[in-house]
Amino acid sequence: MRTIAVLTSGGDSPGMNAAIRAVVRAADAHGIRTMRVASGFAGLVDGDVEPITSREVSGILHLGGTFLGTARSSRFRTTEGRREAQKHLDLAEVDGLVVIGGDGSFRGADALSREGPIRVVGVPGTIDNDLAGTDWTLGFDTAVNTALESIDRIRDTAASHGRLFFIEVMGRHSGWISLYCGLAGGATHVLLPETPTDVRRVREDVQRAFDLGKQFCLVVVAEGDQAGGAFSLADRVVEGLRDVDHRVTALGHIQRGGSPTMRDRVLGSLLGDAAVEALLDGDDRVMVGERKGRLERTPLSRSWTDHEEIPEPLISLMDRLAR
Amino acid sequence: MRTIAVLTSGGDSPGMNAAIRAVVRAADAHGIRTMRVASGFAGLVDGDVEPITSREVSGILHLGGTFLGTARSSRFRTTEGRREAQKHLDLAEVDGLVVIGGDGSFRGADALSREGPIRVVGVPGTIDNDLAGTDWTLGFDTAVNTALESIDRIRDTAASHGRLFFIEVMGRHSGWISLYCGLAGGATHVLLPETPTDVRRVREDVQRAFDLGKQFCLVVVAEGDQAGGAFSLADRVVEGLRDVDHRVTALGHIQRGGSPTMRDRVLGSLLGDAAVEALLDGDDRVMVGERKGRLERTPLSRSWTDHEEIPEPLISLMDRLAR
Amino acid sequence: MRTIAVLTSGGDSPGMNAAIRAVVRAADAHGIRTMRVASGFAGLVDGDVEPITSREVSGILHLGGTFLGTARSSRFRTTEGRREAQKHLDLAEVDGLVVIGGDGSFRGADALSREGPIRVVGVPGTIDNDLAGTDWTLGFDTAVNTALESIDRIRDTAASHGRLFFIEVMGRHSGWISLYCGLAGGATHVLLPETPTDVRRVREDVQRAFDLGKQFCLVVVAEGDQAGGAFSLADRVVEGLRDVDHRVTALGHIQRGGSPTMRDRVLGSLLGDAAVEALLDGDDRVMVGERKGRLERTPLSRSWTDHEEIPEPLISLMDRLAR
Amino acid sequence: MRTIAVLTSGGDSPGMNAAIRAVVRAADAHGIRTMRVASGFAGLVDGDVEPITSREVSGILHLGGTFLGTARSSRFRTTEGRREAQKHLDLAEVDGLVVIGGDGSFRGADALSREGPIRVVGVPGTIDNDLAGTDWTLGFDTAVNTALESIDRIRDTAASHGRLFFIEVMGRHSGWISLYCGLAGGATHVLLPETPTDVRRVREDVQRAFDLGKQFCLVVVAEGDQAGGAFSLADRVVEGLRDVDHRVTALGHIQRGGSPTMRDRVLGSLLGDAAVEALLDGDDRVMVGERKGRLERTPLSRSWTDHEEIPEPLISLMDRLAR
Repeated sequence: MRTIAVLTSGGDSPGMNAAIRAVVRAADAHGIRTMRVASGFAGLVDGDVEPITSREVSGILHLGGTFLGTARSSRFRTTEGRREAQKHLDLAEVDGLVVIGGDGSFRGADALSREGPIRVVGVPGTIDNDLAGTDWTLGFDTAVNTALESIDRIRDTAASHGRLFFIEVMGRHSGWISLYCGLAGGATHVLLPETPTDVRRVREDVQRAFDLGKQFCLVVVAEGDQAGGAFSLADRVVEGLRDVDHRVTALGHIQRGGSPTMRDRVLGSLLGDAAVEALLDGDDRVMVGERKGRLERTPLSRSWTDHEEIPEPLISLMDRLAR
Repeated sequence: MRTIAVLTSGGDSPGMNAAIRAVVRAADAHGIRTMRVASGFAGLVDGDVEPITSREVSGILHLGGTFLGTARSSRFRTTEGRREAQKHLDLAEVDGLVVIGGDGSFRGADALSREGPIRVVGVPGTIDNDLAGTDWTLGFDTAVNTALESIDRIRDTAASHGRLFFIEVMGRHSGWISLYCGLAGGATHVLLPETPTDVRRVREDVQRAFDLGKQFCLVVVAEGDQAGGAFSLADRVVEGLRDVDHRVTALGHIQRGGSPTMRDRVLGSLLGDAAVEALLDGDDRVMVGERKGRLERTPLSRSWTDHEEIPEPLISLMDRLAR
Repeated sequence: MRTIAVLTSGGDSPGMNAAIRAVVRAADAHGIRTMRVASGFAGLVDGDVEPITSREVSGILHLGGTFLGTARSSRFRTTEGRREAQKHLDLAEVDGLVVIGGDGSFRGADALSREGPIRVVGVPGTIDNDLAGTDWTLGFDTAVNTALESIDRIRDTAASHGRLFFIEVMGRHSGWISLYCGLAGGATHVLLPETPTDVRRVREDVQRAFDLGKQFCLVVVAEGDQAGGAFSLADRVVEGLRDVDHRVTALGHIQRGGSPTMRDRVLGSLLGDAAVEALLDGDDRVMVGERKGRLERTPLSRSWTDHEEIPEPLISLMDRLAR
Repeated sequence: MRTIAVLTSGGDSPGMNAAIRAVVRAADAHGIRTMRVASGFAGLVDGDVEPITSREVSGILHLGGTFLGTARSSRFRTTEGRREAQKHLDLAEVDGLVVIGGDGSFRGADALSREGPIRVVGVPGTIDNDLAGTDWTLGFDTAVNTALESIDRIRDTAASHGRLFFIEVMGRHSGWISLYCGLAGGATHVLLPETPTDVRRVREDVQRAFDLGKQFCLVVVAEGDQAGGAFSLADRVVEGLRDVDHRVTALGHIQRGGSPTMRDRVLGSLLGDAAVEALLDGDDRVMVGERKGRLERTPLSRSWTDHEEIPEPLISLMDRLAR
């Protein structure tokens, strides 16, 4: 291994900067040069590849987003685009590439590696926490804590007015953010894309909660829930509710940014370091992750063939505690 | 003055608890009893009026929302409802009432006082900052700081992706939140209900900003802007923009809750204290406020006849700095 | 099992309220009554034991500290005091007790259970993260995130002035907080009670960092480090440093309070629920914990015979990344 | 006016970056070039003076500290050092200098302007809020809100344990931070450098508070209080207190950094813009400030001859509300 390149791809997630810093400094500790690629695969196709030193990743650990930038690239989805990318890697004498992103990014990285000499290692950077091969993805902890802060604010208003609030959180295909927000936010009900939506049950739960003397109710809804998000769910739930004033809000893009939490900084540091280790070990087309407290490597392909299941015990815990 | 009652009415705003605490303790300091009314005018009509002591307002200064609760009351809008309210005030031997809320609440309070022996003083509690007679309303500072925290998070994503973001903030009839968010959030453009919306100019400003090398752009839109909010504005702005990826988000209800800032705690303390002072001075149907650093009293009626104008110099400052 | 009592003991830690809520509601879900004991063992000795319902633990999940109160009790350390405590448990028909606290509290609980019919289960509530039998203690995640927020603020000043900062964090016998703050805060050096303090090496690391062009340096020191805390360490490090302006600050008590993070709310919920489960299973004198993502039960006695070791890989990661 | 230079000097304070950005962009709006001076007067003496554009002050508005750096300079305190500084200003064709800092920095700026052709305008950047000529200094609002967040955390612990806490905040010569923290933090007592310290009265107030049923007490102490700070005050207060468990903590350097609040961003923007305006008007040796909601200019010399008095009404309000 002479030179390692690093890029971030797909949606930004908090902790990406910690991972970039760890890649650069771990490589440095092993006497290996690093190059940074700007704007994800788009920058790779365009040859936006420059050397980066340990000094230049100072002061980024605590920043949200990704200071390398990220972008979609339709050209990289073509064989020709990837040939261009490989050419720029060759020019820069890069033989290992660390890709920080989600399953879409890993597909691209996998294809690149199959078609050329470059070896690739993935770091799971997505707020959705739905990648097989790791218990936690980079950014999930921050995203949920950010959503939670907003939910705490909404609770003040809900409690002041004695209201029912429907709160939509991110998660098009996955209920991780929704479930953890619901558990930690004290919601009466949580709606996930993974489970069928029973509008009548939501209505009954809410009605019973108010009947039992609850002063207010929060229902947390993943954007990808069957009901089609919080607004359409709310419409269907409230018809038939007696004496309940309600409001709906979608937290939206604020869930993505912000200074990463301790967990995401430490996880980013661990995984960036582990990615360099994997490249040094000669691994290719693997994602580094943390499972049960241990670092592991998984074939990149599992990220699009598998899906990290929501743990059933947490769903039943949610039911027990929402009373 | 034998007994003072205090209630919060209309939308909750951070700092209301500081004002309640100040009313109770300032009255206590003058040897006057206090009663708290639960759930605003609705509670007053229903006779939910109880004694409250200095000890019972411990530990609320830093909490968002209003611990007395607030609610709309259609009955209070009738003469009969207000007669009922006056009856409960008589029973509790209350001769002065502090109403913490906005212009709608002050109209109700004004009518109550005109029709019966009760004297009323208003404390401007609304996040909108649009009440004449005070430079700052209770909750505005917190609401803008909360919105700003969200805008800072969105900036991380906007910068990572090189995107244009349209961010909708609260303000149906007033652009105070929008203007301050834009100034403090580094927006390229701000849209207010008070000024005509020039879609073409927004488009040109944004295009020029990107042409001049800006990496990303934020446009802050008050919900009551002529264009009809951020989503419809965005649709009209982006058609015709070249090479600009954009997103839209509405901050929604998170702007209302949360622990009050220092300013809102101090302002709530000052105005709650000043409201007791005004009652002791024999004043009636006035709002207490702070103007140019001094406490002032204004007829309640000004809250619905006048409107606190957005200062022109801030709008031109915004223009100068958004480059 | 007829009735379960719950108390918090020792230093308060964020997430205790989540655990109390979970105990009450999980018991409720199993049809079991709950009593709350105020002010820890002191309240138990005094008989401050009252019924508590699911409704009464509403609105506490997001609050720091413990709403049951906590206190030291010299009387409970005597056999006579514990006899008194058992008497009050008998009067309230309590046959299972959940103790949320650290190793000192668990010793007391263990003695109580050995001397009388009461069965006890512990929930690890301490910010120090040093209890065997669980990967994470309740409060650790919040404490480190709080310290980190402060370290981020100090970084602003350190970077503005080009300074060396020594930052003291909590941890009299354990370096967990210090190590995680150092890793996540981008420190140049971390000092732990568990490892010998090499003042010369700290000095050399710092000097080299500045020589290599670092603009500023942070050194994180556990209060229980061999050097005797940040102030005395700083004195010894800076003599011999060339051209380095330095400051020292101890974060102190702010690390203990504050609204719990998502992790601490979820962990508190899981462990409170698991404690009820353990009592229902007939277990006694065990602590519930989470290890490698699984709930486990450990003899209470391990909390004072063992010590959760700092993982060596994190220390060497710290070294690799601090360049 | 051909070219304006800008520097930050003295202790960093949040909002300095907003002011720098405003100077650069307001000058740009008037068609005037700007130079940035690194590291305060030290950088000026050394000639670290470079052009800066509107584009280069993007993305700094929300950052704490000062991105220009700041440092003390013993050379600038000599006539020879200032001659060197003037030489570098001449070389860069700078005829107006904006100095963002406190009274010490303004003395230096004043001397520089008296001895050479350069004209200087000051922007009050200090967290202490003790400068005559402005109601608020840049950084005060953020510093108090930061301290307040810490005080809110400490309250959790104080309430959980039923404790008395002494909290030391910044303010060597001025009690502004202390008073506002006390008012907004719900302290029982506040100690300021400006008023004599009556240890006995503090003790009696605290004792009475506990006797009246207060669950906990906070006493806020400015570091420059007569008693010599929180630790020595605590020692003297607690001897003679019955049954009160107490703790002492000094908030320290965390009060200085952090992302500026809305107020400090807006104030920095207003004053940076006003400083350019003042230079264009031909003014020299003035500080721009905001008084009673209006922008004003004051001779720099007032910053060291006068002192912004603590308003008496706030002190008596504090007394009324601390019950």
